Amino acid sequence: MRAAVFRKGNLVVDTIPDPILADGQVLVRTRACGICGSDLHAAKFPEQFAALSRRGGARWNIEVGRDVVFGHEFVAEVVANGPGTAGRFAPGTMVTSMPLTLAGSTVLGLGYNPDQPGAFAEFMPLAERMLLPVPDGMDPDHAALVEPMAVGVHAVNYARLAGDDVALVVGCGPIGLAVIAALKLRGASPIIASDFSPARRALARRMGADIVVDPRSTSPYAMLADSITPPGFDPSRYAALFGAGPQRRPAVIFECVGVPGVLGEIMEGAPAASRVVVVGVCMETDRLEPFFGTVKQLDLQFVLAYTAREFADTLGYIADGRMDVSPLITGRVGLDGVRQAFADLASPETHAKVLVEPWR
Amino acid sequence: MRAAVFRKGNLVVDTIPDPILADGQVLVRTRACGICGSDLHAAKFPEQFAALSRRGGARWNIEVGRDVVFGHEFVAEVVANGPGTAGRFAPGTMVTSMPLTLAGSTVLGLGYNPDQPGAFAEFMPLAERMLLPVPDGMDPDHAALVEPMAVGVHAVNYARLAGDDVALVVGCGPIGLAVIAALKLRGASPIIASDFSPARRALARRMGADIVVDPRSTSPYAMLADSITPPGFDPSRYAALFGAGPQRRPAVIFECVGVPGVLGEIMEGAPAASRVVVVGVCMETDRLEPFFGTVKQLDLQFVLAYTAREFADTLGYIADGRMDVSPLITGRVGLDGVRQAFADLASPETHAKVLVEPWR
Repeated sequence: MRAAVFRKGNLVVDTIPDPILADGQVLVRTRACGICGSDLHAAKFPEQFAALSRRGGARWNIEVGRDVVFGHEFVAEVVANGPGTAGRFAPGTMVTSMPLTLAGSTVLGLGYNPDQPGAFAEFMPLAERMLLPVPDGMDPDHAALVEPMAVGVHAVNYARLAGDDVALVVGCGPIGLAVIAALKLRGASPIIASDFSPARRALARRMGADIVVDPRSTSPYAMLADSITPPGFDPSRYAALFGAGPQRRPAVIFECVGVPGVLGEIMEGAPAASRVVVVGVCMETDRLEPFFGTVKQLDLQFVLAYTAREFADTLGYIADGRMDVSPLITGRVGLDGVRQAFADLASPETHAKVLVEPWR
Repeated sequence: MRAAVFRKGNLVVDTIPDPILADGQVLVRTRACGICGSDLHAAKFPEQFAALSRRGGARWNIEVGRDVVFGHEFVAEVVANGPGTAGRFAPGTMVTSMPLTLAGSTVLGLGYNPDQPGAFAEFMPLAERMLLPVPDGMDPDHAALVEPMAVGVHAVNYARLAGDDVALVVGCGPIGLAVIAALKLRGASPIIASDFSPARRALARRMGADIVVDPRSTSPYAMLADSITPPGFDPSRYAALFGAGPQRRPAVIFECVGVPGVLGEIMEGAPAASRVVVVGVCMETDRLEPFFGTVKQLDLQFVLAYTAREFADTLGYIADGRMDVSPLITGRVGLDGVRQAFADLASPETHAKVLVEPWR
């Protein structure tokens, strides 16, 4: 089969062996697969990605020097049911899945695993028990957005919203936009979103942000502090020590950038007692001042991915129109276009999500 | 009055003006005041302490170049009731207080404030409404330990213990020992404690640690992982994906060191899904790998001090014998001995808590 292979630092289109189905697996043909920021990072810093994954105990170990086929945000069509399957999905059924497959009782990650091609390939061997059929009437391509949108749903679930929280989303790439959509779904208000890019700020509004901020001209932290502070609040009055007087609303900040320096900036800018949900995946050493966490009693909750339940819920939210992902799809390429798309995605003005269509 | 004054980088005994009582204040004579690790830090790095306090918005701004009298863990004797007081405490009453005073409605920190001497001085003007009388039958000196022990009570309250948590305390200085005592009070079991110092490990046992570890020879993180893992647990089995099989107990780790590198070490060593309560006050820039937080979905809760309620509760715990602080008092000095005590406290083998007795 054809695939976009990451080989010695380059993305090349090549023919690789067709999948051989293990017990419980279904052969699927990839219909579409999004390019993720983590793919860009893995392609740019493969040694670092591999080393940190190994030290951190992540399952999806990339291995330097070995070919790997990326792609973990996919929708696919059932081609054939393999040995030991129950035949739950007729050929032609559109399905999605968490980016994992099972070979017997062994879990294999999809997308960074040199032993198992991801979805930038024509075919994949998925686990029947993990497949979710795309509901009738849903644009199948939208199912390729379930994976990143589920990241937003998961992050907001971890934020333990109390009802009157004011949310600030720092960074409006695909993950920040997913967080905004999930906040909107939960009824959070106001939702403040910050990004340097005008195109991304426009997308943030479309996904549900109430206030968008260009951090070059307006401090998102000052905006957040204003939004949580009721009239008549005076933090210098001793009454606050004894619990009297108006209280600030809780603030929750979502870090959706994942580059060094941002977490430290948030810790310095955050109002006291903020919860910070760290959604961005920073794969470099970071520097910060713990003292700001201390004097403000900040909570930093790091999150990753989603549960099986959240993934299925997210498919439902998109299917029934509660989450509109169509604004996020800004480009489509065949396998030959993957290399250029990786380059184009460096600019936040051009793209949010590019879908790879291996059948093109 | 006499005081140990921090002046141009040195601790000197000098005579400073007696306090003038503001509205609502009571004049007290210091009976004893503990030396805190933060005092040592402020004396060693005053510029850094001042700069970070200012950037972080802390109230207790030390000011470089101005004299300051440290001391914020105190017990004192009422000498006279000032203007606008209700006279609730007769002269001779032993009292303690959070290290704050009120002048009218203005809150003033005690211990790092150049405008208001802390307790390494003969007298202080405390706020009547913040005073707590030392209960009958309690050793008054033990009330000087309320402040650091309340830090432990507060940290454990923030840890949101679920009943079956396994706790690891990293660092067994006075704050780590306070956390151990508070964990014991809450019934946490087992409590694992880690420190390089044999003397501190012995104190950790006395305060309630079930397992003590010398990190030179045994990894506290491996010990924690073993303690949370039930027989038959296999994280590589796919069943875990679907919620089946035995579950690990929750792990909560208390960072009680407060020097660069420790938080990063904890993030790398922590079991997945650990909560980390950051109690140590690190006043230097730190470096860490956010990626370990991400892949393990760690929660880092920074904490500071205590509430008025927790402070009062802690006085009660010590008074009724539920927290035994006597092992912590390892030395006593007069004002003339403060300078040497600051030097001696650098060695963890010699001392836990040294009490300053300005009347000596």
